[in-house]
Amino acid sequence: MIVILKPGVTEEQIQHIVTKAESLGLKAHISRGVQRSIIGFIGPEDVLRVTPLEVFPGVESVMEVLSPYRFVSREFQAEDSVIQIKDGVAIGGKALAVMAGPCSIESYESLLEVAKEIKKAGARILRGGAFKPRTSPYEFQGLGEEGLRIMKKVAEETGLATVTELMDVRHVELLDRYVDMFQIGARNMQNFTLLREVGKTKKPVLLKRGMSATMKEWLMSAEYIFSEGNPNVVFCERGIRTFETETRNTFDINAIPVIKSKTHLPIIADPSHGTGRWGLVGSIARAAVAAGADGLMIEVHANPEEARSDGAQSLLPKNFSQLMKDLRAVAEAVGRTL
Amino acid sequence: MIVILKPGVTEEQIQHIVTKAESLGLKAHISRGVQRSIIGFIGPEDVLRVTPLEVFPGVESVMEVLSPYRFVSREFQAEDSVIQIKDGVAIGGKALAVMAGPCSIESYESLLEVAKEIKKAGARILRGGAFKPRTSPYEFQGLGEEGLRIMKKVAEETGLATVTELMDVRHVELLDRYVDMFQIGARNMQNFTLLREVGKTKKPVLLKRGMSATMKEWLMSAEYIFSEGNPNVVFCERGIRTFETETRNTFDINAIPVIKSKTHLPIIADPSHGTGRWGLVGSIARAAVAAGADGLMIEVHANPEEARSDGAQSLLPKNFSQLMKDLRAVAEAVGRTL
Amino acid sequence: MIVILKPGVTEEQIQHIVTKAESLGLKAHISRGVQRSIIGFIGPEDVLRVTPLEVFPGVESVMEVLSPYRFVSREFQAEDSVIQIKDGVAIGGKALAVMAGPCSIESYESLLEVAKEIKKAGARILRGGAFKPRTSPYEFQGLGEEGLRIMKKVAEETGLATVTELMDVRHVELLDRYVDMFQIGARNMQNFTLLREVGKTKKPVLLKRGMSATMKEWLMSAEYIFSEGNPNVVFCERGIRTFETETRNTFDINAIPVIKSKTHLPIIADPSHGTGRWGLVGSIARAAVAAGADGLMIEVHANPEEARSDGAQSLLPKNFSQLMKDLRAVAEAVGRTL
Amino acid sequence: MIVILKPGVTEEQIQHIVTKAESLGLKAHISRGVQRSIIGFIGPEDVLRVTPLEVFPGVESVMEVLSPYRFVSREFQAEDSVIQIKDGVAIGGKALAVMAGPCSIESYESLLEVAKEIKKAGARILRGGAFKPRTSPYEFQGLGEEGLRIMKKVAEETGLATVTELMDVRHVELLDRYVDMFQIGARNMQNFTLLREVGKTKKPVLLKRGMSATMKEWLMSAEYIFSEGNPNVVFCERGIRTFETETRNTFDINAIPVIKSKTHLPIIADPSHGTGRWGLVGSIARAAVAAGADGLMIEVHANPEEARSDGAQSLLPKNFSQLMKDLRAVAEAVGRTL
Repeated sequence: MIVILKPGVTEEQIQHIVTKAESLGLKAHISRGVQRSIIGFIGPEDVLRVTPLEVFPGVESVMEVLSPYRFVSREFQAEDSVIQIKDGVAIGGKALAVMAGPCSIESYESLLEVAKEIKKAGARILRGGAFKPRTSPYEFQGLGEEGLRIMKKVAEETGLATVTELMDVRHVELLDRYVDMFQIGARNMQNFTLLREVGKTKKPVLLKRGMSATMKEWLMSAEYIFSEGNPNVVFCERGIRTFETETRNTFDINAIPVIKSKTHLPIIADPSHGTGRWGLVGSIARAAVAAGADGLMIEVHANPEEARSDGAQSLLPKNFSQLMKDLRAVAEAVGRTL
Repeated sequence: MIVILKPGVTEEQIQHIVTKAESLGLKAHISRGVQRSIIGFIGPEDVLRVTPLEVFPGVESVMEVLSPYRFVSREFQAEDSVIQIKDGVAIGGKALAVMAGPCSIESYESLLEVAKEIKKAGARILRGGAFKPRTSPYEFQGLGEEGLRIMKKVAEETGLATVTELMDVRHVELLDRYVDMFQIGARNMQNFTLLREVGKTKKPVLLKRGMSATMKEWLMSAEYIFSEGNPNVVFCERGIRTFETETRNTFDINAIPVIKSKTHLPIIADPSHGTGRWGLVGSIARAAVAAGADGLMIEVHANPEEARSDGAQSLLPKNFSQLMKDLRAVAEAVGRTL
Repeated sequence: MIVILKPGVTEEQIQHIVTKAESLGLKAHISRGVQRSIIGFIGPEDVLRVTPLEVFPGVESVMEVLSPYRFVSREFQAEDSVIQIKDGVAIGGKALAVMAGPCSIESYESLLEVAKEIKKAGARILRGGAFKPRTSPYEFQGLGEEGLRIMKKVAEETGLATVTELMDVRHVELLDRYVDMFQIGARNMQNFTLLREVGKTKKPVLLKRGMSATMKEWLMSAEYIFSEGNPNVVFCERGIRTFETETRNTFDINAIPVIKSKTHLPIIADPSHGTGRWGLVGSIARAAVAAGADGLMIEVHANPEEARSDGAQSLLPKNFSQLMKDLRAVAEAVGRTL
Repeated sequence: MIVILKPGVTEEQIQHIVTKAESLGLKAHISRGVQRSIIGFIGPEDVLRVTPLEVFPGVESVMEVLSPYRFVSREFQAEDSVIQIKDGVAIGGKALAVMAGPCSIESYESLLEVAKEIKKAGARILRGGAFKPRTSPYEFQGLGEEGLRIMKKVAEETGLATVTELMDVRHVELLDRYVDMFQIGARNMQNFTLLREVGKTKKPVLLKRGMSATMKEWLMSAEYIFSEGNPNVVFCERGIRTFETETRNTFDINAIPVIKSKTHLPIIADPSHGTGRWGLVGSIARAAVAAGADGLMIEVHANPEEARSDGAQSLLPKNFSQLMKDLRAVAEAVGRTL
């Protein structure tokens, strides 16, 4: 922690700050300059972080030196984590992991049809929502537990692993029985109650980035899960909110190499939400793989015109198959397999 | 709903769209131009909103005409709503409502001290967190139910109404017993599970704006609460996230007149979070009142240096008292009372 | 300047950085921590700012301590500057300065009509564009020199001071002959060529904030003008670009108290561009005055339906007159006059 | 153009709008709904765009149907444009075009050294600034004409094409004599005076995206150049400004496929500015090629520690060479060559 002092700070004010820090077990180094003096604090920064140094007399501003996260950091673990989703299905190794499926689970027949198609094309994980976060209370909210039953049955028939969104802390056990991976959606990235609860399980968690979350906040949300005892977290970049209206979100491609440099946990990309338009999904999927993503999550629907949600960003199965072929070439070009 | 067609759209494609809309009970008006043709749909737009017209062949883009919210709109109710918080305490009339208190409830003594001070200065509602949403799992998370007990006792002694944040759907009944108003925090503005649950009560809800929520999304979140049967919603502008780093958030002063034009529900301002720096709170509080806000929420702490959260943006009681005097003058200048 | 070092930094790497800094006349203070060591540099930070310390081996990140601006800072001059626009017309004192007029100068008759109206209502400065920055090459680009002649004639007849936008470095002398104040528009806030040229004159400059400029960048643009020898700079907050689409821009009310704390130069508000909708101008104008703005710039047009630019955000003269009355009350409530 | 009418609009008000539109040569189609009526205008939308329909009584909002740009649109020209920079050097075909070099031209020796290195690695165009847009007036502003002379000499010796930034309308002829391509920087993307001047030449123009420019505004800036008679425009995505502070800018990867769908002109990527950190340049360069970019602009410096600007984002020549090898593999994977 570094404290920048105001021009006219008094010795008494400096001493007041130093005393406070020392009472918390920190050591202060004071550097006196002509225009500004600064104090550097050495020691466990956490204890000082909760003290609002900004309000101490004579303080101009405060800068943090250490990252506020521990378990998820590269310093805690240097080598890449590989998260096991199910026997033979993992995220984080040399092989890319692809999740695909409809936005919402609509029926057994339609889910099975899509599941077979995506499996044939090379995806290993089936996605689909049973409980849907919808901006409007008047839109389709998902099939609920019936959707989960359908998903489980389709998974048994196809051998695919499954992931679905968890929105309600009261549903943790319910979803735990039906699926292989929890998804925490963008709107719940800072629903700390939910983060703690999934942290108490051992089930893998797909943590989507909040639509205006900084990467640091995103890492802190993973820290919530990890610090409760669940180290199986996978990040998912799905676009951030900016001033641009041409696309639904702005896919933050920079996040892929930055997150990989900060944490040992894997990161995948969701180009469907990252663009909001199916015609752009292919380009951004290729870009994400080229940038180093460990996998992809892509919306696929057999008949987007009749989709009950997110039809505009869903690929047809045949387009998904073609994309998988294209992705294989890009993956090889960057030393990965698909 | 208006559909803009692509330049080379065929008659067959147009007919396909029209047939779909008519099967949903809508009437189509086609306008054929040299460069573009458009279709306007007349009727209940909701049924069409769930159909992804963007993916129909020949469609270039789709524009909504009607607002997706009903109960919260000015068209549903033209006159301003006044929300009763407690006997003699309301939000939304000519008199401004001021909520004040510490970020977190820390002890009975400290809360009582602040409560007396803010009451003397003219505030009618005591704020304070018992369950705190913290970005880091290692920071103070609030006193929990013990905090609620303290708040209730202080309320009984001072006669102030109370508001505290609800973060967990499992706490609805608990908080209901202790406080007069639920607060839904910025990070939970689109926690639809939570919105539905508070919608099932009749208790007033203070709905903070999400840090990257559009005004339309914010209105939709209020619609969630209202549509479940609870019409007692108060909006709270607390700043949005932008590129500017000089302040913690950018207080969106435009939101005050815009929200008042769209809805009959009241809106208050939180200049403490809207700026993140106590030295700016006064200016923004005055501005919010001048812009037409129905009240304010301000963080006050007897000793910000020792505050367990948000010390940097808390006012001292004496500064709060002075601010209330200044606000009274501004309120009168715009035809309000305080 | 503070340099945060990487965990495994070597002594040799530290020495390499220190040697570089010492060769530039700075003194290094090293603080060694368990997790991170840091180096604080004392002395003229400018010489170090141009050195890309981020690329030196062992460096994790670099933090600036001093502000990069000098002349415009409160430390250079503690008391508020008052900028003289014309005999008897100034910006920056207790009295608020109001600029009003049409977006574009359209004809002698229409400008004279508006000028008389705004003068009667209490404005002292006439605004109007002769050269217009338009997003599209196919829109009205202004009357050019003919517009300037009209403006000068109207100013002589009414006694109002004048301000108009300067877009082209080749027009400095031309505008200098016709008007009392140059306006640098939002799109040219970092047109450094233009900033230098107006810095070589002594004419007051109204410096609008760029639509995505941080306050620090804005202050640096004023520093460009000031450092060339022209201290007559007035800031104008006109809204920033955010994700919100309900308004044309998001008026950054926080900027008013922040800028006033950082610089001795005055700041005015432009609620017309800050909202883009005439119906919101009044609320935001009142808010800006309550927040401490030194004046306002407001678009007024006698017949907005026929305005050749920005009609949607222009007030009718009668609405402007009413607003001025309202503003007088708010101004008095915060100790100012109008 | 579509006009949404207010709920209580009168027939007289509708007639007033229709009369106005018909006087401009447009035909109105009125669709009357229960909640809202709308008017669709068929014909040359441009004439209506300059009329502020928002202020007409009874109008709620106005939506544009047609794009405001013509020459740069895919409808004006369906096939991709290929822009010739110099004999044998073009941007826009199957072969990717790579521009590389230092941020600023610092000396003949250093530029020549870098030029030889980048040529050997496969770049065809040398970049380097002679006039630099610097946020601070106290930073290195470039060598001016001396820099241009150096660049020309190095180009003659190496056979590379050249590009440099144009900041001042008075320098058009000067730069025209020395370099093969003008660069319009992000800060000048809406310096319409400058756009018009380069539009009057035939020299290729590299048009960087403004840091908060929408894609539509960017296309309009190209339209300015094209409409003056210069069709040789190349877009350059260089990152936009968002709330994220981990990177200098957020590289908008979505812009690549969107721009390619809207216009026939080529688009290249600048991962150096798009990230601000040399360690991220490789990932984003690979991503941009995978997304369909027609080329890249990359900062390379033989000794970043001594670079007079942007050292933190410059690659060493050896890292650039390695990157070019990696890019070749990605290019082939997406059917391009390098």
